[in-house]
Amino acid sequence: MALEFWFEFASTYSYPAALRIEALARSEGVPIVWKPFLLGPVFRAQGWSDSPFNLFPAKGRYMWRDLERICAELSIPFRRPSQFPRNGLLAARIACWFATAPWVPEFVRSVYRANFSEDLDISNISVLERCLESLSQPGAALIQQAQSPESKEKLRAQTEAAVALGIFGAPTLVVGPELFWGNDRLEVAMSWYKSHQQAGAVKQLT
Amino acid sequence: MALEFWFEFASTYSYPAALRIEALARSEGVPIVWKPFLLGPVFRAQGWSDSPFNLFPAKGRYMWRDLERICAELSIPFRRPSQFPRNGLLAARIACWFATAPWVPEFVRSVYRANFSEDLDISNISVLERCLESLSQPGAALIQQAQSPESKEKLRAQTEAAVALGIFGAPTLVVGPELFWGNDRLEVAMSWYKSHQQAGAVKQLT
Repeated sequence: MALEFWFEFASTYSYPAALRIEALARSEGVPIVWKPFLLGPVFRAQGWSDSPFNLFPAKGRYMWRDLERICAELSIPFRRPSQFPRNGLLAARIACWFATAPWVPEFVRSVYRANFSEDLDISNISVLERCLESLSQPGAALIQQAQSPESKEKLRAQTEAAVALGIFGAPTLVVGPELFWGNDRLEVAMSWYKSHQQAGAVKQLT
Repeated sequence: MALEFWFEFASTYSYPAALRIEALARSEGVPIVWKPFLLGPVFRAQGWSDSPFNLFPAKGRYMWRDLERICAELSIPFRRPSQFPRNGLLAARIACWFATAPWVPEFVRSVYRANFSEDLDISNISVLERCLESLSQPGAALIQQAQSPESKEKLRAQTEAAVALGIFGAPTLVVGPELFWGNDRLEVAMSWYKSHQQAGAVKQLT
């Protein structure tokens, strides 16, 4: 069993989490699985037609300042996007369809940087093409494959799986039946993984 | 300037924060001010007639499990209250009216323990009398004073001050213009206090 990192490309607190999780997991010796999903359907199920950070302005004001502080502390570049939330559907389809490809973690980080540091529109195909091509991947061809009916269905099923797990926000770390919600719970989730996994179950993955 | 600890007696994550903040602040050399307020008006302003943990069941399920894990990690006794949220109005009036009395921090902790470890109804006058009397305070007399019009007004004004500060949940740590929301941000708030206060401003309080 691995530690699952459930994230959404539009999610603000997923940005620092996505940028730092791989290095942290490696130093802790914890195997991770990248699990993109969509928050839109999750929020709609709670009766929200928009991000709670837009629906509840005090919460939104706090989040932007908090994210700025967190990124400064982690030395992660941050520029507040001129549009929020941006539509991460196509980026999520790419990350979901090619989940096990070796370039996916770096692709995920480049999309987050585009959104939260370069203020680029990550729903724009050419932005995503450039993210892929900067990793020496054939952008247009991969994007076409990620828009197949099978790929769309895979992300839809993964989002349903998130809801079935009890996920209600992002990022969420999942360790067996346990959820840990938020960028500031990464370390706790890693510790939990290490102290609760049977040696054999971890070993299969290493 | 001190670090302000804004809390609500019904708030679940305020429980571990209230129990551990004084010892942490002392070891860090940070002066704290206890700031009880009411979440009810704050939530109503966001269109919620109940705790978000009741309104959004997935979030509520997560919170109860998370709180259980946090308390276990901190060796804080925890029993899920049979009623949630409990009405902390009278307890908040007591803590607000007598804010600077030396018995207030221990009173706050005893009310939180009553709610989240002993499953007692903290809106019940006799429960609060017992909390006060266990600290060798005249329970009935203090409760009577806490129900004066001036006391009611003090808590009302303090709750309005919370909203004016941008507070939208509890616990919230306030350091000058900066907010830190949540039990898991206590350490960050303390660090912020220590690295951003002028030596002179801190010295006045020590």
